[in-house]
Amino acid sequence: MRDVTDQTPVELLVCTTCRRGLPIEDDNQRPGALLHAALAEAELPDGVHLKAVECLSNCDQGCSVVLRGGPERWTFVYENLNETDDIDVIVEGATKYHATANGIVPWRERPVHFRKNCAARIPPLGA
Amino acid sequence: MRDVTDQTPVELLVCTTCRRGLPIEDDNQRPGALLHAALAEAELPDGVHLKAVECLSNCDQGCSVVLRGGPERWTFVYENLNETDDIDVIVEGATKYHATANGIVPWRERPVHFRKNCAARIPPLGA
Repeated sequence: MRDVTDQTPVELLVCTTCRRGLPIEDDNQRPGALLHAALAEAELPDGVHLKAVECLSNCDQGCSVVLRGGPERWTFVYENLNETDDIDVIVEGATKYHATANGIVPWRERPVHFRKNCAARIPPLGA
Repeated sequence: MRDVTDQTPVELLVCTTCRRGLPIEDDNQRPGALLHAALAEAELPDGVHLKAVECLSNCDQGCSVVLRGGPERWTFVYENLNETDDIDVIVEGATKYHATANGIVPWRERPVHFRKNCAARIPPLGA
């Protein structure tokens, strides 16, 4: 893996309004909010910035996150994540994404959950 | 609807590699390629630029398109589109998207297909 010290910063967007189909009434206990809280406690690398967003509009396949980072990287949307099992997956995926110049982590190096739960990818503005 | 003459340009990205689950061998006959070709013949408004992309990674729900347009607009991914029935839907949705400053077309004004087949939305960089 290349030296990442001068990489363009990455945003890890987490949909905090996601209910993951559950009848949750307390907004702070929504699965999306819990996922965001768990990631805020996790060891994300420098240069990966966690950001809460309201509704990524992928409600049927939540929880969802987005990885994006500057005009040269592809943006990725990942789905079917949860706050208890998938924190390590997201940290690993975000770390590897951050280490790329174009956002494309080689297929075999991606976490298995990311391989199987990509909702969409969007080309970089610079492409 | 507001005067759109000075709106930031919009990109309409079409995944041209989409097979929509069909056993198509000729790349030029892939549903995604046909969708792109049909949109190239359609009456898109000035300021909406059609662009072919390879794989939006939403293969199970194809065909797929993306609408994006500058740092102030939300990006939207729409799915389950086809080249015969949905050209008018895409033109209508793209036209209304282009007329917004932030990419958010009021819910009731969105084409019904767009309401029911949004794969994801991604916040603007300027948010």
